[in-house]
This record gives sequence, C-alpha cells and structure tokens, in this order.
Amino acid sequence: MTIQVAVNGYGTIGKRVADAVALQPDMELIGVGKTRPNHEAELAIENGYPLYAAIEERIELFDEAGLELAGTVEEMVAAADIVVDACPSGIGADNKSLYEAYDTPALYQGGEDADLVDVSFNARGNFEAATDADHVRVVSCNTTGLSRLLAPLQEEYGVEKARVTLVRRGGDPAQTGRGPINDILPNPVSLPSHHGPDVNTIFPDLNIDTLGLKVPATLMHTHSVNVTLEATPDADEVRDALDEQMRIFLIPEGAGIDGAGALKEFAMDRGRPRADIWENCIWSESVSMKGDDLYLFQAIHQESDVVPENVDAIRAVLGTADAAESIERTNGTMGIGF
Amino acid sequence: MTIQVAVNGYGTIGKRVADAVALQPDMELIGVGKTRPNHEAELAIENGYPLYAAIEERIELFDEAGLELAGTVEEMVAAADIVVDACPSGIGADNKSLYEAYDTPALYQGGEDADLVDVSFNARGNFEAATDADHVRVVSCNTTGLSRLLAPLQEEYGVEKARVTLVRRGGDPAQTGRGPINDILPNPVSLPSHHGPDVNTIFPDLNIDTLGLKVPATLMHTHSVNVTLEATPDADEVRDALDEQMRIFLIPEGAGIDGAGALKEFAMDRGRPRADIWENCIWSESVSMKGDDLYLFQAIHQESDVVPENVDAIRAVLGTADAAESIERTNGTMGIGF
Amino acid sequence: MTIQVAVNGYGTIGKRVADAVALQPDMELIGVGKTRPNHEAELAIENGYPLYAAIEERIELFDEAGLELAGTVEEMVAAADIVVDACPSGIGADNKSLYEAYDTPALYQGGEDADLVDVSFNARGNFEAATDADHVRVVSCNTTGLSRLLAPLQEEYGVEKARVTLVRRGGDPAQTGRGPINDILPNPVSLPSHHGPDVNTIFPDLNIDTLGLKVPATLMHTHSVNVTLEATPDADEVRDALDEQMRIFLIPEGAGIDGAGALKEFAMDRGRPRADIWENCIWSESVSMKGDDLYLFQAIHQESDVVPENVDAIRAVLGTADAAESIERTNGTMGIGF
Amino acid sequence: MTIQVAVNGYGTIGKRVADAVALQPDMELIGVGKTRPNHEAELAIENGYPLYAAIEERIELFDEAGLELAGTVEEMVAAADIVVDACPSGIGADNKSLYEAYDTPALYQGGEDADLVDVSFNARGNFEAATDADHVRVVSCNTTGLSRLLAPLQEEYGVEKARVTLVRRGGDPAQTGRGPINDILPNPVSLPSHHGPDVNTIFPDLNIDTLGLKVPATLMHTHSVNVTLEATPDADEVRDALDEQMRIFLIPEGAGIDGAGALKEFAMDRGRPRADIWENCIWSESVSMKGDDLYLFQAIHQESDVVPENVDAIRAVLGTADAAESIERTNGTMGIGF
Repeated sequence: MTIQVAVNGYGTIGKRVADAVALQPDMELIGVGKTRPNHEAELAIENGYPLYAAIEERIELFDEAGLELAGTVEEMVAAADIVVDACPSGIGADNKSLYEAYDTPALYQGGEDADLVDVSFNARGNFEAATDADHVRVVSCNTTGLSRLLAPLQEEYGVEKARVTLVRRGGDPAQTGRGPINDILPNPVSLPSHHGPDVNTIFPDLNIDTLGLKVPATLMHTHSVNVTLEATPDADEVRDALDEQMRIFLIPEGAGIDGAGALKEFAMDRGRPRADIWENCIWSESVSMKGDDLYLFQAIHQESDVVPENVDAIRAVLGTADAAESIERTNGTMGIGF
Repeated sequence: MTIQVAVNGYGTIGKRVADAVALQPDMELIGVGKTRPNHEAELAIENGYPLYAAIEERIELFDEAGLELAGTVEEMVAAADIVVDACPSGIGADNKSLYEAYDTPALYQGGEDADLVDVSFNARGNFEAATDADHVRVVSCNTTGLSRLLAPLQEEYGVEKARVTLVRRGGDPAQTGRGPINDILPNPVSLPSHHGPDVNTIFPDLNIDTLGLKVPATLMHTHSVNVTLEATPDADEVRDALDEQMRIFLIPEGAGIDGAGALKEFAMDRGRPRADIWENCIWSESVSMKGDDLYLFQAIHQESDVVPENVDAIRAVLGTADAAESIERTNGTMGIGF
Repeated sequence: MTIQVAVNGYGTIGKRVADAVALQPDMELIGVGKTRPNHEAELAIENGYPLYAAIEERIELFDEAGLELAGTVEEMVAAADIVVDACPSGIGADNKSLYEAYDTPALYQGGEDADLVDVSFNARGNFEAATDADHVRVVSCNTTGLSRLLAPLQEEYGVEKARVTLVRRGGDPAQTGRGPINDILPNPVSLPSHHGPDVNTIFPDLNIDTLGLKVPATLMHTHSVNVTLEATPDADEVRDALDEQMRIFLIPEGAGIDGAGALKEFAMDRGRPRADIWENCIWSESVSMKGDDLYLFQAIHQESDVVPENVDAIRAVLGTADAAESIERTNGTMGIGF
Repeated sequence: MTIQVAVNGYGTIGKRVADAVALQPDMELIGVGKTRPNHEAELAIENGYPLYAAIEERIELFDEAGLELAGTVEEMVAAADIVVDACPSGIGADNKSLYEAYDTPALYQGGEDADLVDVSFNARGNFEAATDADHVRVVSCNTTGLSRLLAPLQEEYGVEKARVTLVRRGGDPAQTGRGPINDILPNPVSLPSHHGPDVNTIFPDLNIDTLGLKVPATLMHTHSVNVTLEATPDADEVRDALDEQMRIFLIPEGAGIDGAGALKEFAMDRGRPRADIWENCIWSESVSMKGDDLYLFQAIHQESDVVPENVDAIRAVLGTADAAESIERTNGTMGIGF
C-alpha cells in the first residue's frame, strides 16, 4: 500500500514537496493545507491536489473564492500516514501538538529549532537516525548543502576542521520587500554563525566554524569552503570523489557557467521544473588542495535542494526503504543529476 | 508537406524559436546553426536537433568536442524553405547574402536595422504585410510589446498620441558582465528614443514618443504607458478590450503579483518552459482613464515574447495561413494564455 | 535678532536641516530633538548642537550613554521661534499638539498629510502662501523636484498637461532592509499615483498625471517627464529657461555623467557635504520638443533637495524675507549651484 | 625644502592622492597629468593644480576646451622629486621608461605587476623596504587591508595560517557598465586566488590562502577572515590589539552600523571628503576566537584605503621620515581615525 502523505503549507517549499511526492510510486499525496485562498491555493486546485483549510474560521473565504475544499487540515492530518510541515518558520512548532494529537509522524523544515524534534535529518548524512522518530527536522538549504559535501569528505579522508563562509542571497526572486539593494552585510555579525552548530545536528563530532554574509542577489547561496582534511589527496582525487555523489553536480571546466544566473539557465534549458537545482553545484575548477587544506566554491539553490531530502525523510521515518534505495528512487523519479 | 525551417543561431532567442518550431504540426525543424561547440551546441544535440557549423574552419572543433555535425549552415540554408536568423545583432546583416544566394526567405531579429529588410513584422499588427517578402524583421521585444497593445487601442478607440517610458532591465539573468549595479540610467539620454520610430515600422502613421531608461534588474522590461485616445471609454471597457487579446495577460487584481519576480514565479508554477512569459503582462489595477488619457503598466519578457511572432512570421511569409489561423495555432501548440 | 530655530528629529532630513540652519546668518540653531541616544545623538554633540530628549522616560538612557542633554523637546519648543519637525512620517502629526500648546509655528516634512497643515510649501512655487501660517508642510523630495521644474514652464509657456513617470530608488544607501533586489515594481500599481495631487497642493490648477515605479537603486530618483506646453518653444529656449533657475542643474552634454553614480561623484569631487545634491539635475541632452510636447529626464536626490526649502520656509512663515531674498541667501550660504 | 611631488593620472586614485599630497607640510604638489581634457581635468584646474598633458598630440584639445596647461607630463616628471603613477592598470608599466629617463623615482598602484618594481609597499608592513628604491608598488586596496590586519597579528601572536574570502564589490559607484546585476560570482574561480601571493609581496613568509567572489554592490569590499594564530589570546585581547592600530577602525557594538551603506553614512556625517574611509573597518562584535582560530569581518573602501599609503611611500622612498613619523604625519593631516 502506498504511503499517504499530507503536505501542510503550500508555499515555496510545500508546493515543490507536493509535486515531488506526487511523482513517487510508493506515495500518494492526499492533500495540501492552506491558510488562505490565494493564488497558491488556486495552483493546488489546478494541479488536482485536494485542498484543506488550516483555519476553520476562514473556510467560507475559500467558498467565496470558488475554491473547493476537501476538508480541514485536522482531517487531513488524521487521514495521513505522515505529514510534511512546510509552514513558515515557527509555525511548525505551533502545529506540533496537532500532529501529536493524531499520532501522525511529522517532518518539519530547517527554520524550526533543532530542539523541537527527535532528530534532524539529511539523507546522505544520517538517514537511519530518523527511523521511527515522531518528529523529524529536514535541515535548512545551507545545512543540507554542507552535509552533502562533508559526508563524503569525512568518510574518504577525515575532516580535521571545516571553515565555511556562506555568501547568502538577500531574498528569493519574488520577495520584493527584502534587501539589501547595494550592500554586503555581515549576517549574523557575531561569529561563528549558527550554521556550524546546525551542521552538528547531523554530524555531532565534526569540527566546523561558519561565517554568514548577505548580498543583493536572489538566485542561489554561494559557499566559500575550506576543509582541512586528515589526509592529503590531490585535487583530482577529491574531484572524483565528489563527482560520484548523486546530489552533487560538478560544473565542468570550460562550460561557461560563471555564476547562479548561468546555472539556472542551464537548468531551464534542460527542462527543470521551476528552474530548480536540487544538487549542490561545485565549480570543478575551484576544487584545489594546498597541503591538507581543501578549497572550493559551491552554489546552493535555496528554494529546492531540501525537496528530495523531504521525500527521503518520509521513507526513513516509516522504515519503508533504506538510504540507498530511497535516494535512488527519489533521484530517478525527480530526474536528479544533470 | 511541412515547412522545412532552419534556425541559424542557437542562443537566447534561437533555442526558444527552435523549440517552438518543433511543436508546430505544419513545420519541421531541419536543424540549427552554431559557430562554436559550446554547451548550447550540446543542448541542440541533447534535444535531437541536427547541428550545422556556421564557420567551416571550425568544423574540426566540433569533432574534437564529440559533437556530431549534420553539415554546414550553407547546406542547411540550401535545404530550408525558410531560415530564422537568430544571430547576435548585426550578424544577421552579414548573413543576408548567404540567404539570398540560395533564394531562401529569411526572418531576422529586432536587433537588425529596419533598412535591412523588406518589411518589419508583428503578428497582431501587420501579419499580411510579410506575404512573399524575402527578408522580414521580427521587431524587438519592446516593439512587439507595444504593437500588441497599440493595435487594439487603435482599432477600438483611435490613438491620438502615445507616450511611453520604457524602464528596461540592464541585462539578462545570465549576463554577468552588464550593469548598472546601483543606478538608474537615461538610455538613450537624447529624446525621444528610437523605440518610437521602431513602432512606426509596424504602424507608420501612429503618433508615438518614447523614453528609455536602464535599471539594475534582469527579469523583464516594464513600460509606463500613456495613450491619449480619440475616444473616452471608461477603464473597464479598455480592460475588457485588452483582456480579449490573445497575447495579453491581464494580471488580476488581488493576485499578489507585484512585479516581474512574482510573474516569473506564476509562470514557473504553471510549468512554463524556461519560465517564459510570451504575453504582455498588464496590471489590471493600473488600467485607468483620465479624460481621454489612458494609463497602464505592462511588463515584457525580453527573452521570449518574440518567439511566437517568429513562428507566425514563417507562415506569413510563405502564405500558408492567415493571421487568425496562424496565431491560434501558435498559441495552441505553445500553450500561450494563462 | 536672529531667528531661534529648533529641529525636532535628527535623522536623514533633520541632520541636514540642522547643518543648513547653522549656516544662516539670520538664524540660530537652538537645538535638536532625539528620541534615543544613538550614533546620531552623538553626532549632534560632536557638532556642538544642544541635544533635547523627545521622551521623558528615556532621559536616563542619554545619561547612561554619556550624552549631555540640554533639556526636553518640550523645553526646546517653548524656547523656539519656529520648529522644524523632521520626524519619521506620521510622527509629525503626533507632535502637532505640542507645537500648538506653545504657539510655536511648525514646519513638517512631505511624509505628513497635506490635511495636517495650513499650507504646503515650495520656495519657487508658492513662497508667499506660507506667511504667518502656523503649520506648514515642506513637500516631499519628488514634489519639490516637480514644482521647481513646472513653475518656470508654467510661467514661460503655460502647461497644458504634465505626465511624469517617477522611477524611484528602492531605499536610501544605508537602509539595508528595503528592496527590491532584482525587480521593477509598479508602486503604487493603481494610476494615476498620489504624486500628481501632491503637486496640486502647490499648483492647484495644474493638470498633471503621475506614475510611480520602484527599482533596486539607492542614490537618486529619476523622473521621465512629458509636459505638453501651451506654446511651442524650441528645445534650446527651454534649456535656457531652465538653466536660469537657481535650483536646477543642467548636466552639460559630453560631461560623461550618465546616471546618479556619476552625479554623486561630481558632487563629492566638488566638496559637497554628504555628497548632497540640492538641485534638480536635468540632462541637457534630454531636453527636447516634439510639437508642443516637451520631454526630459531629471534626477532628484531624495535625501537633500528639500533642505534649502526648509530653510526658506522658516523665513516665509516668519515673514523675515521675501522669496527672492531668502532663496538667494540660502543658496549663497549653502553653496547651491554647481 | 619640500618634496616636489607629481601625480600622473587624475582618476579615482590620482585625484585623492593629489588632495592628500597637497595637505602635507613637507610636500608640494607640482602638478597632475591627464590624457584628455574631461571633467576631471576641469576639477584639477578648479582645485588650482597645475595640469600637464600626457600625450603631446592632444595638447590642442586642452586648448580647445579652455583648460590651461602647465606643460607636458614629461616636463612634470623632469621637475619632480618623485612621481606617483595613478594611471589605469598596465599603463604604469608603459610609463616606467619615462620615469627612468629622468631618474625620477616612481610609485605605482596595485594593478601593476609586482615584477615591474623593486619593492611592493605597505606602510604598516614594510615601510623601510622602500628606502632608496627607484620603482615601488603600493599594493592594492585588498592587499593593503590584509597587510594592516596581519602585521599586528603576526607581531603579537604569530600567524600559523590565514584563510580569507574576499567578497568584492562588482564596480565603483560611477562605473555603470560593470556587473553583475543579480549574481554571486566566484572570481577568480580557480583557487587559491592571486590575492594571497600578493600579500606575500609584503610578508614573504606568511602562510595565506585567499578566495575571491564578486557581488552586485558598489560601496566597499568585505573580507571574511580566518587566521589560525600561534597563540590563543581571548577575543578581547585581540580586539584591543587591533584597536591600537592607527588605520583600523573597530566598529563599536551597538552602533547600528550593519554594512557599507551605514559606514559611508557615518563617514559623511563626520565630513569625510568624498565619503572616503581610509581605515580598515572591523566589526567589533565579529572578532572572535575558537581555539587558536581567529574570525572577523572587515570592510575595505576600494577607492581610498591606499591613499595614505601612497603618501607614506613618498617619504619611505626618499628617506625623509621613518615609518612612525610618516604614518603619524599622514594620519594627522588627513584626519585619519574616527
């Protein structure tokens, strides 16, 4: 029998997770939850996804907007084997008691506190840790990107210390109220930033310090990475090791891809839905070793890299596939890998 | 028998036109021409489009890159019923003699001079004018957008005078060498700008003055439009008249679409290839009348609005369909209209 | 005896007005009001301006910060002949009763409603209207820029109708929380915008429609201007007429000044404090006539063009100089005119 | 007798160096060299600086523009004790033979190759090394910023290794043709970047790797700094050590200065010419230690931080003052130190 999946919240992450779940042969998307009858609610209807109202008092607003409801989010949660909470940061925490009331295991996004859940999750990093957990947090886009990179480095060479500067986009393409317009902002200004400890929710013993900045760009984050290894492979070896990773795309030298704009164009030319780039994008040319110090640049698509991780986390929690099976199935159905 | 179409140049416009031609039941894409074996040449191969080398001396570079050639652009032109030249501005002029040598009618893009051709073309504006022409220029993205808007206004109400400020994007999303970063540039600084006379290549008698600016944005151009009409309809009438146009999208009031970022998100959510928006996007709320003065804002997607126009121009030149038939077929196959 | 001037609010506008007042031989800056002991409060002390606390409960915060207070804003208002309110939009309205309580005439900034005051003010447009008024609003940067331009056009040629697109900067250079980052936003989306009616507070009978957009730039606003005149001067005549205006700077052709960045560089090279540009900056090359339609581009420095207007308004309200005397004195002391 | 200083090139750097030289009691600015009679040439005249033509054939162009010449650059070089070459990158190399022909010692800017000169220079790092050198390169803005930071760290604690990500502005405020508009570009993409070896021209034995990125901002560069020390001071000690440096500004915690926009506002409020910030700006809050790893953020004003270094290099080359004397005199006359 297929896994009955509910997606609560249908914004940037929720709409992508819903589409990805709908592609899985072992899952059925039973519906999506919305607080308001806006254009995203219409999109759910256009896509044929049953629509559930998150707030009972607003049910009539959906009626007025001519959007047919399948019921309330509470009913959706009751009917689901698992719920993916894709609500804005902090709302997931508010929803926890609802999921508990129906004994429905829940996935939360990286904007929630690590303390809220039993385990934080990255498919490449700690798939098995989520088995049978009731509350699981799929870590943020940046932490997902770092986990995918650090896992193979740790396994192959050992990581003595990682130091990463995250040059973060100021807002998503449609978020017109966010800045900065013409500045480079230390953010947060106190160091090291919280991103390192967040990586430690996946790899508790890894020695990592991070620094964050915010710049006037919307397409992707870019990480300036240093990892001091416990071995001294040459750059080609590291490149090969990274190239074997299924959710890492090594940007070929000479491809003329100089930044996130060109990466998105590359993705759109290949028919990616919403121009999504689910993979870490590492510039092949940038991978280099100086002694035991590895350096590289990677770009991370903030809107989509966690989507396959949510799909895998569903199987991890319910124990219906092991890491290798799940990752392969998710990759195959979604078309991950350029 | 289907129309044998060659596309010479496979960049921003060429790759989109090639895809659109491939969708037409009455056309066959016989190949695309490229000067160099780069990632776009690879894309052509991935898409199954026969690849032709534009420069004979570089044929071996394609071999070295492992990209199979179907021949030279000259051979492609010889075999075609019509060629769409989608080369960078000015290269089209250089190619004219080649097309003439093989008596192959040719379409050029809006970057070429109007003097180069027999007729400048917009499907809504002057479809029939292109019949049997040897050299036809599909006007630029901005002129296309203005023509689609002015044609119905002229027909319904008469245009006394149009005054339009074009707030232009500084570069396309993947053009990282273009600016400005933090400025608003009069461009051109002398007034009126050349955009008005370009509209007159479609509507010779229309009274129009234009002003151009360049700003640090990449997604779409935005037009601030004033049209003094020869009648005084109310805003709702104008709105309805525009809404009937097949290549105009009236952004609904209350949709939460405040700019180009949200428009592209809307397009991506609906599965548009490359997030393309082939339609003029007019903010419904902005349409207003003061006396005989109409005001409105429209956004124009610089990378794609001319694509259906190129498809229609093929039929117009060869006389295989009239305007209404062609436009409807192009719209239907491409999925134009939200 | 010199005019005793208080400046309540010491931010973007207040600090500039305070400096300008301090330069006037017929005025004395008796102090500036602040709500909090931040770095701008420190700046006031560094500049030797007596500092007054706006909120009594916060007096000790100033003590803790080591910033000596001269008293409360209430005391400052009581001692002043006139107060310039330079508080954020809306706070001026809250302060009105305080100024009334002490019978101190007050100037407000353009963010306040026109209804709040007896008269809206522009030195070039309606200097005399402010005489003896208790509550006067110095109109916004954009309205100031439009008034300076329209006054001489009206006088010389008559204005049949003005149509202006205001391409507005998204935020000031230090406002890092404002966007958009990569978009062009109709703002407001409904037309015509409120800027036209604001011009009518200065020129009640002038026929003007305006359209507003917001773009990712921080340095200056840019106006795309059309004025249908009641005469048909040639462009050179208009250029000469504008060049005679003391608060208009005609950017010389061939100066290599292509936008706001170059304008600010020009200002900084000439030692302008804070790189301020108090003048309307009109590109000489852009001034052109088509029939009775005048077109031009002007750039407006949002942080400073109202500063000399505030100085003049002080004299206008108190009747200590007529328009010509005041404007000349303000210009001379501040160094207005490149 | 005062040092006779010529400045060849009067653009971004040259105009600032000329102003700084003019402030020095032990120097006399004998003139500035220009290739063309543009608005910067006018500025030199306005400032009373003798103007010399760099290209003989263009002398009449200056005449036509009404700009009085004092002679040719060759004559200026002949008359000077030392020449500061502030020409665009690469032109300095072309000029070398001219300076040699007149035995005039010359300073070059950081855009020239290190191989061109006898010694690369930073006042804090290696003042004495320049004594009696004929050709001296004042290192680039970024290398200057790194040298000022690393010198005291090396002296106080020893530097085991420095790893720095340079998040670079895409262009200067008036450079409207440079991008990117909406991207984050690895630049250069191959690692480590050339900035590290450039630091080694000042500190030959220092172990440093650097990474460079380019973003859509114009005001300042920002460095994300990691230095592994040979000691483990606490963060407060390091902060104090940095605070003692005369060309380092520790941005106070709680000052509300979140980025370059606020820093420039701070500088303008304090009357800095051209809003210049000659100091490294280090966020006090960011200075932190994790084991022996120091982390911090610093902002570097690309247009001005090398200006005092040029002034000091003049004295260093001619041996008229030692490092401490020169730096103090330069700082005092220019007003360095907030």
